[in-house]
Amino acid sequence: MQGVFAALTTPFVDHQLCLDHFRENLEKYEACSLHGYTIAGSTGESVYLSDDECETLVLTAKKTVSSQRKLIVGTARESTHKTLAFTNRIADIGVDAALILTPHYYKSLMDSDALKAHYLHIADNSSVPIIIYSMPRNTGITPTVQLIYELSQHQNIIGIKDSSGNLANCEEICSQTDSDFSFLLGAGSIFIPGLIMGAQGGILALAAVMPEMCIRMYRYFQENKWEEAKRLQLDLIPLNNAVTTGFGIPAVKYVLDLRGFHGGPCRGPLQPLSEPKRSTIQTILAKLNS
Amino acid sequence: MQGVFAALTTPFVDHQLCLDHFRENLEKYEACSLHGYTIAGSTGESVYLSDDECETLVLTAKKTVSSQRKLIVGTARESTHKTLAFTNRIADIGVDAALILTPHYYKSLMDSDALKAHYLHIADNSSVPIIIYSMPRNTGITPTVQLIYELSQHQNIIGIKDSSGNLANCEEICSQTDSDFSFLLGAGSIFIPGLIMGAQGGILALAAVMPEMCIRMYRYFQENKWEEAKRLQLDLIPLNNAVTTGFGIPAVKYVLDLRGFHGGPCRGPLQPLSEPKRSTIQTILAKLNS
Amino acid sequence: MQGVFAALTTPFVDHQLCLDHFRENLEKYEACSLHGYTIAGSTGESVYLSDDECETLVLTAKKTVSSQRKLIVGTARESTHKTLAFTNRIADIGVDAALILTPHYYKSLMDSDALKAHYLHIADNSSVPIIIYSMPRNTGITPTVQLIYELSQHQNIIGIKDSSGNLANCEEICSQTDSDFSFLLGAGSIFIPGLIMGAQGGILALAAVMPEMCIRMYRYFQENKWEEAKRLQLDLIPLNNAVTTGFGIPAVKYVLDLRGFHGGPCRGPLQPLSEPKRSTIQTILAKLNS
Amino acid sequence: MQGVFAALTTPFVDHQLCLDHFRENLEKYEACSLHGYTIAGSTGESVYLSDDECETLVLTAKKTVSSQRKLIVGTARESTHKTLAFTNRIADIGVDAALILTPHYYKSLMDSDALKAHYLHIADNSSVPIIIYSMPRNTGITPTVQLIYELSQHQNIIGIKDSSGNLANCEEICSQTDSDFSFLLGAGSIFIPGLIMGAQGGILALAAVMPEMCIRMYRYFQENKWEEAKRLQLDLIPLNNAVTTGFGIPAVKYVLDLRGFHGGPCRGPLQPLSEPKRSTIQTILAKLNS
Repeated sequence: MQGVFAALTTPFVDHQLCLDHFRENLEKYEACSLHGYTIAGSTGESVYLSDDECETLVLTAKKTVSSQRKLIVGTARESTHKTLAFTNRIADIGVDAALILTPHYYKSLMDSDALKAHYLHIADNSSVPIIIYSMPRNTGITPTVQLIYELSQHQNIIGIKDSSGNLANCEEICSQTDSDFSFLLGAGSIFIPGLIMGAQGGILALAAVMPEMCIRMYRYFQENKWEEAKRLQLDLIPLNNAVTTGFGIPAVKYVLDLRGFHGGPCRGPLQPLSEPKRSTIQTILAKLNS
Repeated sequence: MQGVFAALTTPFVDHQLCLDHFRENLEKYEACSLHGYTIAGSTGESVYLSDDECETLVLTAKKTVSSQRKLIVGTARESTHKTLAFTNRIADIGVDAALILTPHYYKSLMDSDALKAHYLHIADNSSVPIIIYSMPRNTGITPTVQLIYELSQHQNIIGIKDSSGNLANCEEICSQTDSDFSFLLGAGSIFIPGLIMGAQGGILALAAVMPEMCIRMYRYFQENKWEEAKRLQLDLIPLNNAVTTGFGIPAVKYVLDLRGFHGGPCRGPLQPLSEPKRSTIQTILAKLNS
Repeated sequence: MQGVFAALTTPFVDHQLCLDHFRENLEKYEACSLHGYTIAGSTGESVYLSDDECETLVLTAKKTVSSQRKLIVGTARESTHKTLAFTNRIADIGVDAALILTPHYYKSLMDSDALKAHYLHIADNSSVPIIIYSMPRNTGITPTVQLIYELSQHQNIIGIKDSSGNLANCEEICSQTDSDFSFLLGAGSIFIPGLIMGAQGGILALAAVMPEMCIRMYRYFQENKWEEAKRLQLDLIPLNNAVTTGFGIPAVKYVLDLRGFHGGPCRGPLQPLSEPKRSTIQTILAKLNS
Repeated sequence: MQGVFAALTTPFVDHQLCLDHFRENLEKYEACSLHGYTIAGSTGESVYLSDDECETLVLTAKKTVSSQRKLIVGTARESTHKTLAFTNRIADIGVDAALILTPHYYKSLMDSDALKAHYLHIADNSSVPIIIYSMPRNTGITPTVQLIYELSQHQNIIGIKDSSGNLANCEEICSQTDSDFSFLLGAGSIFIPGLIMGAQGGILALAAVMPEMCIRMYRYFQENKWEEAKRLQLDLIPLNNAVTTGFGIPAVKYVLDLRGFHGGPCRGPLQPLSEPKRSTIQTILAKLNS
């Protein structure tokens, strides 16, 4: 697993899944040379989707995208058993990896032993490779480097998506794990520095709104054009902040609307973006395109 | 809503729901004069239950317990729409209130506006009264006193279960809300002080493991026997800590096993209680009963 | 150590210590039957005072207040050695106890071993009894109940001032320590519940702004007039919030100004209270006095 | 201000400042081509030093080090007035910059307005340029990017030392501030990535224990030898962790002892390094030198 993956949104019309919009978005993305897509991750409002809805999205994507693109699907539930069952249900469709968020409701009990047992049981029994998903901002759980190292030894655990934004964590994990274990950045703000320090790619909300620029940034990195890579990275910081730590998914969808994709509303309790925030985003986009 | 409510566990055998055990536990509880029960709360491993499993538990309880007892059911999902739908599905069985946890995955976006819209939409459309459930330790979300005050004005929002353990919060909410809005303590460590300061009762894991003592403590309070109430409260602190902030739900179930109820294992990723922790609990129980 | 202690402010004129104002404040407090005073605590802007300034305040207080009142002085510095030296310098003036804040700059290293060594070395060598001061909101450090229990065994460590606002902590410490170890509440919001559960008194910013009401509340408690105590406690919540977690020391001083004491400005970087905040406080006071 | 600065330790013998050891350390460092030194920063146990002790250290350094090296001195106190006074006292000795930690005791009141007033008052009146020091792990205070931008406009505020380890923060500040405002990394784990993204250098505990390697790493960066720079950065991660977030200053001093510098004990309440931790450090060093 390497390269640039767009963390896809889930389009809704009247709060119902809109598969047409989802398909049309994918058709647009297909022109962008992304390495793959993530369906039903945090950006995809996975916690608001039913199992059936998620499955439908994956089936739609399978029919729409080139077989060259990797498909990664968020399949985590809180319980080990339900996570495994849903992972295998999605695996049967034929996807490249399952992205499995750390369970987190009983935070004080989610120590390394519990997380290790959870991931090993799933990895032992999953018919698709597993990518660990660490998203401390939303979960309050930060797996230790030691735990990631131990899990990386399992042949069915092929990588981690780390959205912590902590570059030292990236460095440590890349140093300690084998080269066939993929470190995928979840924080667009440190995409280039992370690649330089050893990450294999990123699964980014930023790549959903600015796929071309993210691909260009990645190519600069591959071609050792560090100065250009750095410049583009810095230029993208304000937009990346807006669609992640700043205003979140409603901002991702608003940028998509502005750029000719189907963004649309989020499901509640996520609220529509306020007018001042829309205006801020327009200013950021205008500056980025100037 | 007032008095002592046991936060029920969900018994499993081979990871499957065991309705016989659930029923037999309820039959034992029925001898204890509790004011009611909460099904599928945090103690009930709600996040590990399917909608069907939860419904089956409620149906079983309806058949088993006296109509004098109140039945409160945890019906929260992350999305507003799914929470409402599941609340009404459970309401159709005939329960006294739905306990609705604050949505929390997109933490930075769960501000008062989002939470207010969420609860008001559900309250407007639910066929059963709503109790707000605040559990900051697990969710990272603490609703403001102002928000609770505003929500308390809705006639279908009848109370709050607050598991923060923050007594000042209890005092402020009890001061500001009308007397028909119930403040129910979720932290057994401050049950008596909370009652003294104005709370109407508690929904407690402690009441699941020590129903008789919790009822006795509540009666002391009602009879103005403060000294006895305080003494019993202090005596129960070590056990309460063990089954909540200390060792959590595996400890609740272990105490149930020791006391002749059906405790049994938790679903993964919750891990079995280690031997030293079991031993600690035995010591605490021995001291409590001496 | 028991009863109601006012956490004194330090009056400044043109950023210089104003001993006249300090003395005149004390003369007013002397009419209020408080059990004692704390000088150079958090409310006294201790971190902005030099050793000489603190000593001068204590000397002034010694000359001004009745020998019936207890004098407690904040003498903590970050290092063990400087804390001990300054404690003994203040002890030489003749005070009743030194209030010693947990050291906290190197947070990750301030574990129970470090804190234990710190307090035991000071207690062994101090010529005045020691009160541990736990203020997690400002320090990020929460001593464990086990540590407090161990320290309470030292004959020169006579109590703890706990400003955490965590009543369960109060209950646990009161349960585990001997009756000659004083638990003094630092959070005015839980003064009455804390007393009921076993605390011996409080060192309160609230007692600096509303000494008469705090004394009245304490007497209600002593006379078993729980209902009156509870009512007054609840009435005082908004003002207590304003002068602590809400607006802090600038608010304490503003209330003093309004009530005929010398409040005056704080030292920088603390900023003057904004007009809207002043207005909020006036409203709170008006309601309290109605 | 650019390049590699060692965050110096303060040697003690029997808890007393040992100027001979301090001088001998500096003489060793002088052979290493560092760009400068920081005296009385966090690594120098500044919070355990008196004003006189700090001044003596600076006077000793002035006599010992080449005039080519920059001298930066930590001069922060909690109050604005004392910080300014001590800054000017140190400025009179002749140093290159004062490093001023964010005030932090009254955390909830240290908003951007308070911090801005604090730094502007000091900058307006200081006879030496100011470097802002952000150390959220110890202070709980994270200045906003907007605040740093505004302060950077003051001609006497010449840079920031940011020990947050948050590379996105580095990127944002470097993007928004003028090129004559120095971003100095305080987290050795992200030294190379930070330089790549626009930082001018670092003030590092790592540079106190491994000055040669840090200089070599910096030169690789300057010579566009990215691969070598990255490799060395990754190799240094375990040691950097040990002397910072892992074991802290006692570990810095232990490594100095092992490497022929004068490390020695810390002042209390910092505790001596345990035997297992010493052993861990020896293993890390052995691997680094292999």
